[in-house]
Amino acid sequence: MSNSFGKIFTLTTFGESHGVAVGGVIDGMPAGIPFDESFLQSEMARRRPGQSAITTGRQEADQVEILSGIFEGKTTGTPIGFEVRNQNQHSQDYENIRNLFRPSHADYTYTEKYGLRDHRGGGRSSARETLSRVVGGAFAKMALRKLGIQIQAYTSQVGDIRLEGSYRDYNLNEAEMNAVRCPDADTAARMEALISQVKAEGDTIGGVITCVVRGVPVGLGEPCFDKLHAALGQAMLSINACKGFDYGLGFDDCGRRGSEMIDTFVAKDGCVTTSTNHSGGIQGGISNGQDIYFRCAFKPVATLLREVQTITNEGEPTVLKARGRHDPCVLPRAVPVVEAMAAMVVLDYYLQNAARL
Amino acid sequence: MSNSFGKIFTLTTFGESHGVAVGGVIDGMPAGIPFDESFLQSEMARRRPGQSAITTGRQEADQVEILSGIFEGKTTGTPIGFEVRNQNQHSQDYENIRNLFRPSHADYTYTEKYGLRDHRGGGRSSARETLSRVVGGAFAKMALRKLGIQIQAYTSQVGDIRLEGSYRDYNLNEAEMNAVRCPDADTAARMEALISQVKAEGDTIGGVITCVVRGVPVGLGEPCFDKLHAALGQAMLSINACKGFDYGLGFDDCGRRGSEMIDTFVAKDGCVTTSTNHSGGIQGGISNGQDIYFRCAFKPVATLLREVQTITNEGEPTVLKARGRHDPCVLPRAVPVVEAMAAMVVLDYYLQNAARL
Amino acid sequence: MSNSFGKIFTLTTFGESHGVAVGGVIDGMPAGIPFDESFLQSEMARRRPGQSAITTGRQEADQVEILSGIFEGKTTGTPIGFEVRNQNQHSQDYENIRNLFRPSHADYTYTEKYGLRDHRGGGRSSARETLSRVVGGAFAKMALRKLGIQIQAYTSQVGDIRLEGSYRDYNLNEAEMNAVRCPDADTAARMEALISQVKAEGDTIGGVITCVVRGVPVGLGEPCFDKLHAALGQAMLSINACKGFDYGLGFDDCGRRGSEMIDTFVAKDGCVTTSTNHSGGIQGGISNGQDIYFRCAFKPVATLLREVQTITNEGEPTVLKARGRHDPCVLPRAVPVVEAMAAMVVLDYYLQNAARL
Amino acid sequence: MSNSFGKIFTLTTFGESHGVAVGGVIDGMPAGIPFDESFLQSEMARRRPGQSAITTGRQEADQVEILSGIFEGKTTGTPIGFEVRNQNQHSQDYENIRNLFRPSHADYTYTEKYGLRDHRGGGRSSARETLSRVVGGAFAKMALRKLGIQIQAYTSQVGDIRLEGSYRDYNLNEAEMNAVRCPDADTAARMEALISQVKAEGDTIGGVITCVVRGVPVGLGEPCFDKLHAALGQAMLSINACKGFDYGLGFDDCGRRGSEMIDTFVAKDGCVTTSTNHSGGIQGGISNGQDIYFRCAFKPVATLLREVQTITNEGEPTVLKARGRHDPCVLPRAVPVVEAMAAMVVLDYYLQNAARL
Repeated sequence: MSNSFGKIFTLTTFGESHGVAVGGVIDGMPAGIPFDESFLQSEMARRRPGQSAITTGRQEADQVEILSGIFEGKTTGTPIGFEVRNQNQHSQDYENIRNLFRPSHADYTYTEKYGLRDHRGGGRSSARETLSRVVGGAFAKMALRKLGIQIQAYTSQVGDIRLEGSYRDYNLNEAEMNAVRCPDADTAARMEALISQVKAEGDTIGGVITCVVRGVPVGLGEPCFDKLHAALGQAMLSINACKGFDYGLGFDDCGRRGSEMIDTFVAKDGCVTTSTNHSGGIQGGISNGQDIYFRCAFKPVATLLREVQTITNEGEPTVLKARGRHDPCVLPRAVPVVEAMAAMVVLDYYLQNAARL
Repeated sequence: MSNSFGKIFTLTTFGESHGVAVGGVIDGMPAGIPFDESFLQSEMARRRPGQSAITTGRQEADQVEILSGIFEGKTTGTPIGFEVRNQNQHSQDYENIRNLFRPSHADYTYTEKYGLRDHRGGGRSSARETLSRVVGGAFAKMALRKLGIQIQAYTSQVGDIRLEGSYRDYNLNEAEMNAVRCPDADTAARMEALISQVKAEGDTIGGVITCVVRGVPVGLGEPCFDKLHAALGQAMLSINACKGFDYGLGFDDCGRRGSEMIDTFVAKDGCVTTSTNHSGGIQGGISNGQDIYFRCAFKPVATLLREVQTITNEGEPTVLKARGRHDPCVLPRAVPVVEAMAAMVVLDYYLQNAARL
Repeated sequence: MSNSFGKIFTLTTFGESHGVAVGGVIDGMPAGIPFDESFLQSEMARRRPGQSAITTGRQEADQVEILSGIFEGKTTGTPIGFEVRNQNQHSQDYENIRNLFRPSHADYTYTEKYGLRDHRGGGRSSARETLSRVVGGAFAKMALRKLGIQIQAYTSQVGDIRLEGSYRDYNLNEAEMNAVRCPDADTAARMEALISQVKAEGDTIGGVITCVVRGVPVGLGEPCFDKLHAALGQAMLSINACKGFDYGLGFDDCGRRGSEMIDTFVAKDGCVTTSTNHSGGIQGGISNGQDIYFRCAFKPVATLLREVQTITNEGEPTVLKARGRHDPCVLPRAVPVVEAMAAMVVLDYYLQNAARL
Repeated sequence: MSNSFGKIFTLTTFGESHGVAVGGVIDGMPAGIPFDESFLQSEMARRRPGQSAITTGRQEADQVEILSGIFEGKTTGTPIGFEVRNQNQHSQDYENIRNLFRPSHADYTYTEKYGLRDHRGGGRSSARETLSRVVGGAFAKMALRKLGIQIQAYTSQVGDIRLEGSYRDYNLNEAEMNAVRCPDADTAARMEALISQVKAEGDTIGGVITCVVRGVPVGLGEPCFDKLHAALGQAMLSINACKGFDYGLGFDDCGRRGSEMIDTFVAKDGCVTTSTNHSGGIQGGISNGQDIYFRCAFKPVATLLREVQTITNEGEPTVLKARGRHDPCVLPRAVPVVEAMAAMVVLDYYLQNAARL
């Protein structure tokens, strides 16, 4: 269960990578929002396999079909059903893993939990599930446009190569100009070279994605359990391969002193702002009008293109040599997924905050 | 809204630090569990202010009164209402902050969101709210005992002093033998000295808490949005001052290679286990039977016992000198809160997983 | 579980009739609403036992203590904890039912479900639980006042005595002027006489409560599963002893023809209205601005003050003679409970509908 | 929002009658249940338009395509996406209602709530939405089979023709042997004649559906707000055209005396049972192992095949003559929808009750 996300704006997803289709239902989409189909497909293209030399070689068109909820070019406020038919499946590539547990994959836990599993392509735990999240996020972004809220994520670390500056030091629009989605061209080139090298070795590599949300009004987030950053954290950690989340000055700076870290309030043109933003745009769980920024740690993909030891369903030792087409590094394609989850959280919390007399 | 937490085992909390009482309702507590009152109060004592020289000097008895749900020494399956009456409030200590916004506190965001705020002691954003979480966690632990599930958290970093080893390198029971709750006596002494020094300077300091959950059966966690670690992350990030969460080999190791990080499955005495546990006990969002371990980053407390610049509600510059009694470092008292949230998540997910034909 | 009600405005309740206290937590209460304490207590008085010769003789003050969420006379938007301490418990009155199952009570089902039960006073299934609903409803009404929404319920049938007219035929304010809460004085007198007679016979009797909600704006209710009347029905059916719900022209008129039952739209002063209101103020699950009216069927109370056959926990036949103090007819005291549930539903759906861009 | 239903077993639906497709996502389906495709299609056939002379003349194949969640003939525990492509749409039939409000339809309330509406075929408020409920119900029934739980609904009243006996007086299997779905052949013939006559007059007619659930174990239902019958009531009232719900001896008998209505417990073969079942199989909100039975009142369809007065979107008086193909009586086709909703509620509550240590 629990393939639904959100409280007022919700996304429910379905589908396995080797079934008939993947898709979902968006509920709570505000009515009267122009449907921007080309934007939707451009978001899909950002997540699509086969987009560059450093992603999986699978070619999937990922053409989204909208089944409901749009009338004469606008959203109607009723649920938006959508689907993407699966194509270009090489299900036979997975026949060799039918009876074994791939290391650090969900094969074993699914089998134990459900008593059976669809072994082809990871079934429900496949990264293909994130496709539906990007659709949900694209609709959320269409609504956020009206509010002037913008979301941009980028790759800030691959292996030991990391951007040293803060998000303010880069033109984030440049992130989309290279395959690795890093806004600094030189660093991007080094990251890309590293990924290529790792791929050539049949290995994989992880890193960090940073995301910035600008234009969020004051007041989003609920004080106790549903703090805005807690919802963002849950959303990001629900993405395949995400192992950590922090916001504002997180793990790197948590050991510092209060006197270095508090954000002084200042009045500016009749508005309250802060002279610094160590808080990451959220205080007491509620947005304060400053930029929200956070980081997500992604582990290296568990599927190696080399031989690894494992065991069969019956517990016998065996050797696995993955055959499918896999990403050596998940980060470039995870960038739009991070944005999509952020967009859905922010819109949902905007609507929650609007629920007033 | 959203002062409720959990899906089947739920905690709903209420109360401000300077109101009549804080408390809550535990719903979904399994029936027939012996009520261990002394254990409950010992958990409260771990969170209690005034427990050592390095915590706030406030003296609060924090005596919990159970109002319902227990009959003849056992839980009945009906909701457990509880409360702790507020005492020893020095509300006048807060009169000076009635008309100003404390830096990096929720004063400004609450005022904007609700149009008014209870300025005394932080109102709902006070750390006193975590008291109710410890009550919820204590009941969850009483149920988890029956399942053999154990939870232990400890302080692993204060300022730049950090434990270099993994949780396996220490006897975690020793964490409770010092004021800072660090399982290594030497490190604990250094941490304690650092906190004392920071306190003397009127400053504050942050750090990291690590938590380990042992004995979790295979199968807890839902595949898509409700991955077990996403729920743990949300829970931890909802604790006051928590800025980050990671599990298994998180931020520190996300840049490494897949070949270093996969956990090889091995069969041992007819059971499936893994030779390493970089995954942190969770694969595909579902527990795999290994130890679950995670880290929480806590920022330095925002209330400094020195003068700081800020503005009034009307936007005029002013100087704040905090008067109340405050913790120089939140970590020692946050350790039981981290455990409590973990206990509630694990019990809730155990019950979700039990919902089968 | 599931002692919580509502989605945005929520009430969570706890407490047994013979425990320490009953109470609850109201979450999602809009901020800045003046707290009208005397109104709250007057609502409690309407539900209070011992209010007239035809209700139970128990004397309970039912003084509500507010524990949080109010500051300087206004709601703060944070949760409102409240409690009523139990008094005047005659727990020994229930000792004789410890080991038997009262007919048409929850004794057997609770014992089977939870493995144990608090036998005193019905435990959680006691009508005393509805006290907390009246508190929740009183706060909801304080918010609805601001919107000009009014709710009035009344007893429309006791035994075979029923009001033949529609709610428009009476001055509903007169319902509060007699013990049975029927707006027609003559009918009220006959109902009261019937209840007295039934009581003298050691028997009980049921009937129907009708409720009217005026001033609801167009647009409350969600189209599919959360139709406004479905939420009202669920709310009413969750009240102890309620066996049925219908709205508009319900069971009595469902067999009629469409041509008799459709409500013709007419434009009046630039507003859309309907010439009749067979729809009961709701079309397609959404309020249309007309009066909402519905009926609730209440069964006769199951506790008779005469000997009845039953069995012990071990299945042995036995005879039960109830000793406690019980209502011969639940309807007079259920009227404010019906209003309370309606108030909470309408406010919750108002807030849901306000959750927009 | 709120196009989702259920807590653990959930159904989320999408789709308009004149869009691309209707469908949904079933989440929480137990794993390992054999998928019975022919049963699914037979359930669809029971709801299908055009099945007899007394239903709408529309011919829709209603062929369900399963998109996910089934592997090698069994459910996998992952979400089941499904869809039915819309065909045989006569969208032009609705062009004449684009700019007017049909009486007692949702046209006006949708327009006010959302600011726009899809006027073709009622959009989301079309009875076509119930198709997805029948799919959800069919899967729930596949799981309930394993538990021996059976659900049967039938038409018990059309106009003023009603079955006088209780459900125990008929062989309910005979309900499926006539077009009106009434288990008494003579009454069925009279009902059918009445519907034909009403249809000939361009009018419509309502009635009552009765439903029986057998084999429910003791213990389903939650004590307070989530009483089993409250959930059933909400489910039924969410069906298009349903105006009322009662269970056990409801509206007809609520005015009787307690001494006539209590169900005496008796021990039989070591089991606890009751000598009568006025309670309708539920006591204190929890199933007691007896048959659960309830009634649903359905209003006459609002679309008449004759001229009716109404107003345009701009408030001008106009005359409407419906052109589409419509049911003169909703009951025959609503019978499988009632069963489907009941099946989903019972399975969901079974799973909730199974969530224990």
